[in-house]
Amino acid sequence: MPQNIAKPQDTLDRLTLSLDSGAFVDVQRMLNGMPPADIAHMLESSPPKFRNILWKLIDVDLEGEVLGELPDDLQSHFLSRMDAAEVATITEGLEDDDIADILQQLPDRITWEVLNSMDHQDRARLEQVMLYPDDVAGGLMNTDTITIRARLTLDVVMRYLRRHEDLPPMTDNLIVVNRSDQFIGLLPLRTLLVSDPSTTVREMMITDIDPIPVDTPDDEVARLFERNDWVSAPVVDESGRLLGRITIDDVVDVIREDADHSFMSMAGLDEEEDTFAPVARAAPKRAIWLGINLITAFIAAAAINMFQDTIDKVVALAVLMPIVASMGGVAGTQTLTVLVRGIAMGQVVRNNQNWLLVREVIIGVINGVVWAAVVAVAASLWFDDWNIALIIGAAMVINLVTAAFTGAALPLLLTRFKIDPALAGGVILTTVTDVVGFVSFLGLATMFYA
Amino acid sequence: MPQNIAKPQDTLDRLTLSLDSGAFVDVQRMLNGMPPADIAHMLESSPPKFRNILWKLIDVDLEGEVLGELPDDLQSHFLSRMDAAEVATITEGLEDDDIADILQQLPDRITWEVLNSMDHQDRARLEQVMLYPDDVAGGLMNTDTITIRARLTLDVVMRYLRRHEDLPPMTDNLIVVNRSDQFIGLLPLRTLLVSDPSTTVREMMITDIDPIPVDTPDDEVARLFERNDWVSAPVVDESGRLLGRITIDDVVDVIREDADHSFMSMAGLDEEEDTFAPVARAAPKRAIWLGINLITAFIAAAAINMFQDTIDKVVALAVLMPIVASMGGVAGTQTLTVLVRGIAMGQVVRNNQNWLLVREVIIGVINGVVWAAVVAVAASLWFDDWNIALIIGAAMVINLVTAAFTGAALPLLLTRFKIDPALAGGVILTTVTDVVGFVSFLGLATMFYA
Repeated sequence: MPQNIAKPQDTLDRLTLSLDSGAFVDVQRMLNGMPPADIAHMLESSPPKFRNILWKLIDVDLEGEVLGELPDDLQSHFLSRMDAAEVATITEGLEDDDIADILQQLPDRITWEVLNSMDHQDRARLEQVMLYPDDVAGGLMNTDTITIRARLTLDVVMRYLRRHEDLPPMTDNLIVVNRSDQFIGLLPLRTLLVSDPSTTVREMMITDIDPIPVDTPDDEVARLFERNDWVSAPVVDESGRLLGRITIDDVVDVIREDADHSFMSMAGLDEEEDTFAPVARAAPKRAIWLGINLITAFIAAAAINMFQDTIDKVVALAVLMPIVASMGGVAGTQTLTVLVRGIAMGQVVRNNQNWLLVREVIIGVINGVVWAAVVAVAASLWFDDWNIALIIGAAMVINLVTAAFTGAALPLLLTRFKIDPALAGGVILTTVTDVVGFVSFLGLATMFYA
Repeated sequence: MPQNIAKPQDTLDRLTLSLDSGAFVDVQRMLNGMPPADIAHMLESSPPKFRNILWKLIDVDLEGEVLGELPDDLQSHFLSRMDAAEVATITEGLEDDDIADILQQLPDRITWEVLNSMDHQDRARLEQVMLYPDDVAGGLMNTDTITIRARLTLDVVMRYLRRHEDLPPMTDNLIVVNRSDQFIGLLPLRTLLVSDPSTTVREMMITDIDPIPVDTPDDEVARLFERNDWVSAPVVDESGRLLGRITIDDVVDVIREDADHSFMSMAGLDEEEDTFAPVARAAPKRAIWLGINLITAFIAAAAINMFQDTIDKVVALAVLMPIVASMGGVAGTQTLTVLVRGIAMGQVVRNNQNWLLVREVIIGVINGVVWAAVVAVAASLWFDDWNIALIIGAAMVINLVTAAFTGAALPLLLTRFKIDPALAGGVILTTVTDVVGFVSFLGLATMFYA
């Protein structure tokens, strides 16, 4: 039977329309028939007033899973209205890393109450995960591992599995541990299913996969998953003891956020920026970025200010000067973007940095000369003045080469000082290209026309 | 045993150093001890001349898998030196979608020869995958499905599986089909392992998961995987017949490229941009983007040109005018960035667009007024002129509100006309904020000082 997938956008559109017209019963029926991740998407894609209405329409037994799929600030928003008992109820049955994320948003007192309301085993498992910040392997892991011993035969393992009601989601391997609970290997379900039941785990297990140390940064974890095509991977402490496992669904979130990070940072925004944040929350965040850029704009203005007399003599300079600055900004941003992504993907290291730097400068020289020629011809035709053509051409070459060098060297330098090049790089770069653009153009003009 | 994960960057650094010093034997040993994805990463992270050396050092039996992990332009680079027999040899054992990708890069004649050298069954499977472009479900799928019939007991299924040497990677479900090969459900391995062997597939299979239609766009496929936490999913044709399955590793690549797309497009770059492309390939690509931006820079210059007389009278205007334009550009880029991401994540639809537009304009007014006041005070102190303070303040408000409106409306409009807002949005936006910034500031000044 052919399946017609309703595009999520269409569903979202219909839902918003029903909300708008107050048809809450329809909304409720639509909403509670969706997978929790889709409900979370609807909440994320709605203006603030609708979010609160939607939340009230969600079935209580879905609330926990929906909450687990929401970004941190929306979790906090809904959690702030709940007491400990409610939190305990809705988090029941969630995965450890999701519960830990949720509890970490709550005031300590409520976290404490929720933990106290759990049974001993659940609490111990959760406290384990909550020991680690959410940007390392320990914060991404779940403790729902199925472990077996190496000396068992596959037949015994099969009978052991059949005693379970269900296996945890995304179980692709059973984890083989020794009697001190230390990781020694993996038995893929695939292997279990095709092998002779009388062989032992030890004979069939894989031992060439390294478990993930608990303090591995999340972007490193993501890279390991991507490179090795893992579905899940075991997490161990410094003594090799098994602590839990990370599954690909949590890694996909890390990959998505890492990739968004560079894009959002270039505009001074957070990678978890709420698209539908209310004015009161969005405006102040944006204002800070505008303030920082205002400082750089005043620095550029100060550069122009030095050449008031020259502009007074040849007013055409004021007309053409933004061209030099803006072309430098665009060229520099291209270089910066290539470098920021290369660094984020772990492609740029000490021994290939110089090659990149040299290549960018060569590109800067080539494109500088090409476009300087075009701009020079255009300027001379426009103002019928060959002096101005020569001046703007020379300034363009200077600025495009500077832009290439700065765009390449800056992210390398910032990274060395542990400053985020995607966030700080753009502001510093445009300050440089503005100042160099104005000073080289107006400076050369001053020498000619003085 | 504690594991010391060698960071890929360290390995890359050592490898580059050995290459530099000509210690090829060391390089060869290091290289061929790595997983194919890591070797591909090393190739991607090396300047062109080293890439060719590295490629020659890779063991022949690893070449196929390494090739499968490379981006398209690097695949083409290495494939262009092979004949059909070599291609046939190295692609043996690769997954269908990877082979299809590789074959699609080759001249038709060679593709034909490679297909002819395969056995009938392999060729039929491949031709199936090659029917579809690589940005829809059909191009992402593999045909290595394990199918079972609903009437079997789990015990029979187990015995059937044990007849296999191995199951395909990332097999988390067996696919249940009817006698016309139409999809009717999934039997998770998890369920198979915990259930009573005497029950039938029909009793235990899941039927509430919709298979993916073969022409579903790849970003939609990625969204389905993310929302539903799938590891693999079946692909069907319009009559519901099973064609293959998509696995999460291929979806992760789509997610990574989609997220990179917005970031790279804003600088006029391709999301598959080769960080280490040689000058001859990188320079022309960059030049085109600079040329497009030059046109917008000339438009801004023409706007200033209308006010030559006013600037001639009050040269301070030339000093301050870039501030108005640049603050508009920054504010507009913030709005554009939020909208571009919201659209890419499928959060923005017809019924919530207006709310976003209104919110952005309100933020524009608030931040416009706040920073206009700051700039006005700063300008009046600098030039000791309250007229100029009022003029720049008013121009700032006008430009920041325009920036907010344009930044929000533009991507909505461009998307409607199927133009990529991440690519075209930035250029159009800065043209608008430059022109409106210069015209409002110099225009108001002309009224005052005329």
